[in-house]
Amino acid sequence: MGSSFGQFFRISTFGESHGKALGVILDGVPAGLEIKKSMIQRELDRRKPGQSSITTPRKESDQVEILSGVFEDKSLGTPIGLLIKNEDAKSLSYNHMKDLYRPGHADFTYDARYGFRDWRGGGRASNRETTARVAAGAIAGMLIKELANIETLAWVEQVHKVKAEINAREVTREMIESNIIRCPDQEAAKKMIELIQVKRKEGNSVGGKIKFHVKNCPPGLGDPVFDKLTAEIAKGIMSIPATRSVSFGLGEEAIHLTGMEHNDIFSLADDSSIETLTNRAGGILGGISNGQPIEGNITFKPTATILKTQKTVDRFGKVVDFQGKGRHDPCVLPRAVPIVESMINLVLADHLLRYSIASMGRLKKIFY
Amino acid sequence: MGSSFGQFFRISTFGESHGKALGVILDGVPAGLEIKKSMIQRELDRRKPGQSSITTPRKESDQVEILSGVFEDKSLGTPIGLLIKNEDAKSLSYNHMKDLYRPGHADFTYDARYGFRDWRGGGRASNRETTARVAAGAIAGMLIKELANIETLAWVEQVHKVKAEINAREVTREMIESNIIRCPDQEAAKKMIELIQVKRKEGNSVGGKIKFHVKNCPPGLGDPVFDKLTAEIAKGIMSIPATRSVSFGLGEEAIHLTGMEHNDIFSLADDSSIETLTNRAGGILGGISNGQPIEGNITFKPTATILKTQKTVDRFGKVVDFQGKGRHDPCVLPRAVPIVESMINLVLADHLLRYSIASMGRLKKIFY
Amino acid sequence: MGSSFGQFFRISTFGESHGKALGVILDGVPAGLEIKKSMIQRELDRRKPGQSSITTPRKESDQVEILSGVFEDKSLGTPIGLLIKNEDAKSLSYNHMKDLYRPGHADFTYDARYGFRDWRGGGRASNRETTARVAAGAIAGMLIKELANIETLAWVEQVHKVKAEINAREVTREMIESNIIRCPDQEAAKKMIELIQVKRKEGNSVGGKIKFHVKNCPPGLGDPVFDKLTAEIAKGIMSIPATRSVSFGLGEEAIHLTGMEHNDIFSLADDSSIETLTNRAGGILGGISNGQPIEGNITFKPTATILKTQKTVDRFGKVVDFQGKGRHDPCVLPRAVPIVESMINLVLADHLLRYSIASMGRLKKIFY
Amino acid sequence: MGSSFGQFFRISTFGESHGKALGVILDGVPAGLEIKKSMIQRELDRRKPGQSSITTPRKESDQVEILSGVFEDKSLGTPIGLLIKNEDAKSLSYNHMKDLYRPGHADFTYDARYGFRDWRGGGRASNRETTARVAAGAIAGMLIKELANIETLAWVEQVHKVKAEINAREVTREMIESNIIRCPDQEAAKKMIELIQVKRKEGNSVGGKIKFHVKNCPPGLGDPVFDKLTAEIAKGIMSIPATRSVSFGLGEEAIHLTGMEHNDIFSLADDSSIETLTNRAGGILGGISNGQPIEGNITFKPTATILKTQKTVDRFGKVVDFQGKGRHDPCVLPRAVPIVESMINLVLADHLLRYSIASMGRLKKIFY
Repeated sequence: MGSSFGQFFRISTFGESHGKALGVILDGVPAGLEIKKSMIQRELDRRKPGQSSITTPRKESDQVEILSGVFEDKSLGTPIGLLIKNEDAKSLSYNHMKDLYRPGHADFTYDARYGFRDWRGGGRASNRETTARVAAGAIAGMLIKELANIETLAWVEQVHKVKAEINAREVTREMIESNIIRCPDQEAAKKMIELIQVKRKEGNSVGGKIKFHVKNCPPGLGDPVFDKLTAEIAKGIMSIPATRSVSFGLGEEAIHLTGMEHNDIFSLADDSSIETLTNRAGGILGGISNGQPIEGNITFKPTATILKTQKTVDRFGKVVDFQGKGRHDPCVLPRAVPIVESMINLVLADHLLRYSIASMGRLKKIFY
Repeated sequence: MGSSFGQFFRISTFGESHGKALGVILDGVPAGLEIKKSMIQRELDRRKPGQSSITTPRKESDQVEILSGVFEDKSLGTPIGLLIKNEDAKSLSYNHMKDLYRPGHADFTYDARYGFRDWRGGGRASNRETTARVAAGAIAGMLIKELANIETLAWVEQVHKVKAEINAREVTREMIESNIIRCPDQEAAKKMIELIQVKRKEGNSVGGKIKFHVKNCPPGLGDPVFDKLTAEIAKGIMSIPATRSVSFGLGEEAIHLTGMEHNDIFSLADDSSIETLTNRAGGILGGISNGQPIEGNITFKPTATILKTQKTVDRFGKVVDFQGKGRHDPCVLPRAVPIVESMINLVLADHLLRYSIASMGRLKKIFY
Repeated sequence: MGSSFGQFFRISTFGESHGKALGVILDGVPAGLEIKKSMIQRELDRRKPGQSSITTPRKESDQVEILSGVFEDKSLGTPIGLLIKNEDAKSLSYNHMKDLYRPGHADFTYDARYGFRDWRGGGRASNRETTARVAAGAIAGMLIKELANIETLAWVEQVHKVKAEINAREVTREMIESNIIRCPDQEAAKKMIELIQVKRKEGNSVGGKIKFHVKNCPPGLGDPVFDKLTAEIAKGIMSIPATRSVSFGLGEEAIHLTGMEHNDIFSLADDSSIETLTNRAGGILGGISNGQPIEGNITFKPTATILKTQKTVDRFGKVVDFQGKGRHDPCVLPRAVPIVESMINLVLADHLLRYSIASMGRLKKIFY
Repeated sequence: MGSSFGQFFRISTFGESHGKALGVILDGVPAGLEIKKSMIQRELDRRKPGQSSITTPRKESDQVEILSGVFEDKSLGTPIGLLIKNEDAKSLSYNHMKDLYRPGHADFTYDARYGFRDWRGGGRASNRETTARVAAGAIAGMLIKELANIETLAWVEQVHKVKAEINAREVTREMIESNIIRCPDQEAAKKMIELIQVKRKEGNSVGGKIKFHVKNCPPGLGDPVFDKLTAEIAKGIMSIPATRSVSFGLGEEAIHLTGMEHNDIFSLADDSSIETLTNRAGGILGGISNGQPIEGNITFKPTATILKTQKTVDRFGKVVDFQGKGRHDPCVLPRAVPIVESMINLVLADHLLRYSIASMGRLKKIFY
């Protein structure tokens, strides 16, 4: 269990790092949405390995195939099956770690859960699994753009101790894509890239912070009480490998303000719509979007794979030395940006559909 | 939608702040679990209003009734229905806020979602909704204790700028319950209580941080890839009113370490079981528990209700003055402690059942 | 598990025959639907015991309480909690059957599943459980009537060997309610009632057939491939106690026709809409409604409780004599009519919501 | 929505008749189950087209690929992805029916639901969709066999007016597979085959009845109240294309018995287990298996495709003539046998997992 996400716009994924293929079925995509393979491929290319000098050199073209659910470039309403084949799966390079538990990895916990595991490249626990999420997230992104002009942006805000300075409301996708670390602050980006290159040479790794910012989300999305928009996004985010925290609005900083300082005051915009003068809440009140940008931060730990000898134990209960090998990312953040956007888009697509049927007022528009 | 939580151990709640009653149905509780009303009541008493000088004076005895699913003090395997009646619901004191949108509250967003709302005391958005969660969480707690001796503790770690110093592994439930703020550091507790009393008099409010620490969780709980234990707990936590962030292990601090510094090294315990020398990961690897304590932190914003005049708008699009009244908590944290524990227990109960059927090895124990 | 029904319009029920109360939570009812207690009560009165000389004399007023989710007679969009208290629960009359397995009842199978059971009046397996379904079904019925003018009718078509002759398209609710057996053919109704009275005196029981007929269902409801309208209605129907078969359209009679004789030919109605000249398919093609009346038949077995000594075994593995007592229905059909209607209405409400979001065409009506 | 089935053992399918491929993801298969491709292929071969002179001549080898979730012939506990490519998809032969609604088919209803459709060979509504079910059902069959020795058999009991005479308890898989119609009564089988060949030559089609019989199902499977075993099997069965009714035990015949005649009397078997002297209930009481064979009947309508000119309408609202072409089955029953078995096996696998966690007694076997 656990490989499905969403209730109305629902995805189910499969695939191990060194198996034949990765894939996803999307069930609940409304009929009539324009879907072109190139639009999915564009997002996959942002996530794929080997895209720059600061990512893993594993070579995967990550070409997506649409197997079903799309006819003449439009969704049929039936399940959309997407497939991405594994090409450069060098299983042999994992042979030496077959029986031992790599520190910081899920080898031990998969064995504890299932009794055995596919030890080739981390199996299902590999970050490679997120390929299927990005393919699905691309379609979710098209739906929310088409229906409500919603756009989700994410970018690298901090790598180790290098922090960017960014005015979130001014960021565009072009700014994010303008460098290989995906940080719109060009100065900071340069330093981040340099830092990662240094750490890579040392065989070491670093973590950091990604910020997300959703534009044009209408007020009213999010289902009280357990499926609050904050709760659903938090789940989506924390299901991404290597995440350690998620926050909304001011996040941990909210502690330093009193209630009198923290509340966002409502006022009227020029077009008479209701807005808030500040956005300390991060666009969500009581779990429901309030029309302001949805904003928050995500912490990623440093990559667990390091090229250094570490002590560990094997599945026979013996202490052994483990020397990291394999092809990995010294910092997961640049490739994590499209994954973050995908998870948020999947949540928003689901909640846009839920929103449509939450009131008789909206339903009557359909039936009368 | 959105008022159910859990897949195998599943709860469905209902109730508005000033309606007739709050309640919950638990479906999936295995037959034969000992359940006494007093064990549920004990947890409700920890959450109930009016329990101390730093909580809201609303008077609710919050007596639980077991309506079904329990026979001769044992669960029947059929749905357990629990009911808590509202007693001290002073609807009239909310009359003046019927048409306006209180800053920091969900009035506006509920209207945006549903077209209208129950304006008495926040309706479904009220923290009063969490009563049902605590009643259900009490039963979840009994199940995980009975089956695997798991115990979840949560306590107040910080209020506004007052921080506690606590050795998490030494905390007991008695220490937590030894003062009205539920902070095991008695020195810090005293300062926190004083601070809250000052802020209450000012008509102001403060937020803070709650830490959770789960003892005795066996390795192997958590479902890759979307239902990781981190993801599920994060969802449960962020569905609690007033939460702003959730983190695991080192949380945001993980950024300051490199991979070489961050990995927890595996070793053998005295009883030959596998442990880690440190617990920077917070007890979860690849979304699955590794046998170490599950640990993390939660940020709560300062309570939105403050007794001060604020500008806002009403549902007719007019700017108005709003003067806070009603009975509220100047700091939600002491009453949030049992809510946090409940949400974590609900996740763990669900995943203990999932774990039972995740491998043929375990299933064969049942069938042979 | 198993006490929830529906995906978007979802109900969760609880309650044992001789427990404190029965109840249901409805999650997913759109906000703004007019809901009056009297409209729910009317349906409960059609199901309640003691309503006529041919039903069980158990005395239950089955008064419904609305605990949440409705404010000023309109649904809030939040979960609706409904409660019906048990009043005339004579547990003592079941004392003698505490340890034995009544033939035709679920005593043995509940013990096999759960290890023990609430033996008072059949516990959760009692037909009394369906009270909660009828309360929920009443609200589902209001929704489908309000949104699409759909009306579900069911009636008794056959009791034991007495068959009615009825033109389904002419039946009205008034005709169904015009006699205590709920059969629109007055001649047949009289014979059925007489037969049941004879069987009751003998301490015997009879089964029969109920027909359902849904008017005004628009084309397009039903979700391929597993959630076909036929499949969902079949599940709902077969979850009603004592059902033995369900069929659609010609049902088993379809076998006697060849393809050339069976196909319903499409043609144009006076208003240019598409209709079929016959309705052998029962209003559903490929699992999706085609605009014709949805029709089918349901078989109910004779009531298992008979007032006669039967051999059986007890839970200690001993053969014993069992003498039926208690207050039961000699024929469940008249009270089953509102239960059948309720289950169908619950399916249709769920699918009306699903239908609303199945195509971009309909969604765009909401967003533009 | 609607392309997933099962709650704990859950499948999600995709694929159109003339798209690139069909497939299924199984989530919830316990780790450690032996799975060989040949075991899945064997079941697919029983369903595949062109297998005999009485089935459609469409040529599909229906070779299954295992894409994930199986490692060294054992299930990993992670999702199992199965793929079957379409090979002989002659889209052009459907060109003439692109805009019209074939009588008895789902063309009109898919258009009503989604606004447009994949008209090539029926798209998702084609019986070809069931390929994915059979692949998944094969794995479900392995699980229930391995854990509880359960075996599901189905066979053709009647074709049009030709009825077989069969003692269900004596039927073996070999008897079923001994002829191309899959009827264990060799005399009847011969007549059925002749009848189908005659009807095929006429361009006509026939329906019939399939009986199912589950051996060795332990008592205790099935979840009250909505997920009764009868309800779940009924849903699974009625989701198969062309089904018109499903019944359990005596089915419609139960009407002709009184309660005194219908009850199955409990007694003790030679090994002291509890059995019933008769099996009128079809192995299920109160929705839970009682240890007797689970038995019932299914009606299939005659195939809608006939090679004859029929009147119909097109999507522009014009009356047109339609001449049936394409490659279709004059009788779906022989190929439906493995589909029926698959759906029942999927239900039983799901409920075997549910059963495992329904009581503390069973759970304690795992944890202690």
